[in-house]
Amino acid sequence: MCTRIDGAKVAKDIRENLKEEVERMELKEDDVKPGLAIVLVGNRTDSATYVRFKKKACDEIGIVNIDVHLDETVSEEEVLSTVRSLNEDQRVHGILIQLPLPSHISEERVLREVSLEKDVDGFHPFHIGQLSMKRSLSSICLPCTPKGCIRLLDEYGIELEGKHVVILGRSNIVGLPVALLALHSNATITICHSRTKDLPSITRQADILICAVGRTQMVKADWVKDGVVIIDVGINELVDPSKKRGYRLVGDVDSSVEEKASAMTPVPGGVGPMTIAMLCENLLAAYQRSLK
Amino acid sequence: MCTRIDGAKVAKDIRENLKEEVERMELKEDDVKPGLAIVLVGNRTDSATYVRFKKKACDEIGIVNIDVHLDETVSEEEVLSTVRSLNEDQRVHGILIQLPLPSHISEERVLREVSLEKDVDGFHPFHIGQLSMKRSLSSICLPCTPKGCIRLLDEYGIELEGKHVVILGRSNIVGLPVALLALHSNATITICHSRTKDLPSITRQADILICAVGRTQMVKADWVKDGVVIIDVGINELVDPSKKRGYRLVGDVDSSVEEKASAMTPVPGGVGPMTIAMLCENLLAAYQRSLK
Repeated sequence: MCTRIDGAKVAKDIRENLKEEVERMELKEDDVKPGLAIVLVGNRTDSATYVRFKKKACDEIGIVNIDVHLDETVSEEEVLSTVRSLNEDQRVHGILIQLPLPSHISEERVLREVSLEKDVDGFHPFHIGQLSMKRSLSSICLPCTPKGCIRLLDEYGIELEGKHVVILGRSNIVGLPVALLALHSNATITICHSRTKDLPSITRQADILICAVGRTQMVKADWVKDGVVIIDVGINELVDPSKKRGYRLVGDVDSSVEEKASAMTPVPGGVGPMTIAMLCENLLAAYQRSLK
Repeated sequence: MCTRIDGAKVAKDIRENLKEEVERMELKEDDVKPGLAIVLVGNRTDSATYVRFKKKACDEIGIVNIDVHLDETVSEEEVLSTVRSLNEDQRVHGILIQLPLPSHISEERVLREVSLEKDVDGFHPFHIGQLSMKRSLSSICLPCTPKGCIRLLDEYGIELEGKHVVILGRSNIVGLPVALLALHSNATITICHSRTKDLPSITRQADILICAVGRTQMVKADWVKDGVVIIDVGINELVDPSKKRGYRLVGDVDSSVEEKASAMTPVPGGVGPMTIAMLCENLLAAYQRSLK
């Protein structure tokens, strides 16, 4: 029997708690409200969708959105100067740079321009360094998707200590930071990627398998051992003529794995909603710190 | 036949090259020479020994030492203010904080006080973040021991790409950063530590095993597979009445492993000398950057 790790439900509960937290603040008309600036560059459909979801969650909770939509052809200097003015803006407690940026703009330079106080995505090198070294983790924002993965395990009472956690993918946004968080929770970690040889022989050792490579249903039932816990971060479009839009969303893990897994996140409705809930949580924490 | 990975020899060659590099600068009497400040707090014998080795290497190469020896009972604020004045000191191109610091002083706070330009140990959170995210690695100093480990493999023509590298130990100084460097060289990495279950079953999978736990001869022959490459970072004292000082230095790996390994670093004379050579290399790179 495979437990469905219901990220949508957990995320909804978190958002409701955050909404209550904002209500308890009893903010007056003139008070500065928690504010999130979302910087979107260009017109990627997926990015626009993610931004819409994030804004919706903010609205529900009582977080003010400060929208910044820049043209695809904007210069790097203009993006940097936008970030600098948001750093100064008293209404803004968190700055989210929707990734990926167009290729002519250095993500590295843009992300390190965000002030440490407003880095609600936790992607500033200083924060990734603190995360790597397990330092002052309670006073910084952790990257939202990795934090959401670990929170889901926690909510379902799945211990990390002493477990062998195998991570597929080594991106700066998911694979690497989630591996570090698992390590700091005393898991043994293995990070695999496109150059890994005989991948199934490694994934079969996983007590917990975290998949974040973005390859449609890559992980099959014979890639895992009985009782494995699966966190599927992948969100891939699979052609499906029966759907109105012509495709459906699937993860990196094939549904056949359910037969062997003890617990597994669905796609959609698993990690995705958690990312947004963690963003809102980070924003409110940054707001609270700004009041001190 | 097990190849001896001769760190002492590789390090000597590197130091000689660095010495020639300094000579080629043809510095005049009035010119600012490359300068390394070494901050030693307290009277640990091992720390004093390491500092002596580092100073000797600097002297040989033509790096000026600025010695700062603080009392065991110094306050954290005094250490921080010492670091701040070294940050301003034009003679100083690198600041080395000899670790560990006495327990009443926060290493975290001291290390992040070192200016980014003078962080020749690469321990500032910003630099560890850059390292984690594989960003601008050519323009920052990488932590000396991890860099030395990878350099040794490189010198002996041992490829990392596609290899399974198992790291024993997850310290911020060695285990974690060396794992990240191996990952960035396209190795599959597994990080093990004191909470890892059935350690030998994991170490036996290693193509390359990097040991940095500081436990005397812990890794035995039946913990590894035939042909493994061993990088032994451990430096442990083993009682030996036949020695004048009553002990000899041994690594984390038992000498019986030589029968199965294809290549292995000795202790002493393996990674140790490389750490110092990498420090000198980092210092000269920081000096060169300061001239631009």
